[in-house]
Amino acid sequence: MRKLSLFIASSLDGYIAKPNDDLSFLKLVEKDGEDYGYAEFTANIDTIILGRKTYDYVLKAIGSEHYDNGHRDVYVITRTERPSVGKTTFYSGDVQALVQQLKSEDGKDIYCDGGAEIIHELLQHDLIDELIISVIPILLGNGTRLFKDNRPEQRLEFVSAKSFDTGLTQLHYKRIR
Amino acid sequence: MRKLSLFIASSLDGYIAKPNDDLSFLKLVEKDGEDYGYAEFTANIDTIILGRKTYDYVLKAIGSEHYDNGHRDVYVITRTERPSVGKTTFYSGDVQALVQQLKSEDGKDIYCDGGAEIIHELLQHDLIDELIISVIPILLGNGTRLFKDNRPEQRLEFVSAKSFDTGLTQLHYKRIR
Repeated sequence: MRKLSLFIASSLDGYIAKPNDDLSFLKLVEKDGEDYGYAEFTANIDTIILGRKTYDYVLKAIGSEHYDNGHRDVYVITRTERPSVGKTTFYSGDVQALVQQLKSEDGKDIYCDGGAEIIHELLQHDLIDELIISVIPILLGNGTRLFKDNRPEQRLEFVSAKSFDTGLTQLHYKRIR
Repeated sequence: MRKLSLFIASSLDGYIAKPNDDLSFLKLVEKDGEDYGYAEFTANIDTIILGRKTYDYVLKAIGSEHYDNGHRDVYVITRTERPSVGKTTFYSGDVQALVQQLKSEDGKDIYCDGGAEIIHELLQHDLIDELIISVIPILLGNGTRLFKDNRPEQRLEFVSAKSFDTGLTQLHYKRIR
């Protein structure tokens, strides 16, 4: 069955952004030629799920090429219905049903690129199979939390911890089925 | 100058206890003969700061020998004044003033054993010099957060990440002065 994976950066105190969607702390670990395994990770991905606010942010900050949208299916979870554009579908139905359908189909793995609301909904329904969290060496003190309160307890299998000379440590866990 | 260090276990989602001070998740990583560096860490400690609720919990669950109280100074931060008992002082004054005074004195290092309220107050005043966080392979979903909101941003120097075969990963950072 296809896996649904999270691949995301977080401060040591558990924030994925400072207030006002400020991601500038990620610059602390930017280094030429170092992608922290992102290319290797996305080589096994053909489908991306993300929230509408994250989609708008990425479109503005990077552009749709970030999702290699000619080749990958992109599902943008939104409360406002919109027609599909190429391989990008705007989905306003039940997220749990979407993920269960995608997992039952053939294909490579599925990548959730955030944001915090979608991650929360997926975790509430125990739908994330793999978590790869890149811990940035900073306490942000405030912002958007990767993990909101009120989720079920979920034991994890530790896979690996990799440290990089920028001070980033990447923690990798699998869901225990 | 003496360092003030945090040495604490947290779930991957950033909780140090489940609701009702439930610490049973720590049993997941208990292993005979494995103390995850605690003895080595405390060998350099002669002073302990902790909150009153944590103190009461430890007294009940383990006993005062946990703090090797014959040899170490223990400061229990409390709103209710109480007379000292041996080397244990109940302190109801300003925590920032206490820590600054202790740091200015000669001695080994200082260990903050929690709880979350004291950690928060120390971080708000940039008084923690070293963080050693043992990440337990579980999402608890709810509970007492290691890091509360509303603290200043603080950059950290990465020291090390050590993984153990129980799935615990110990992250070690220093404050950048």
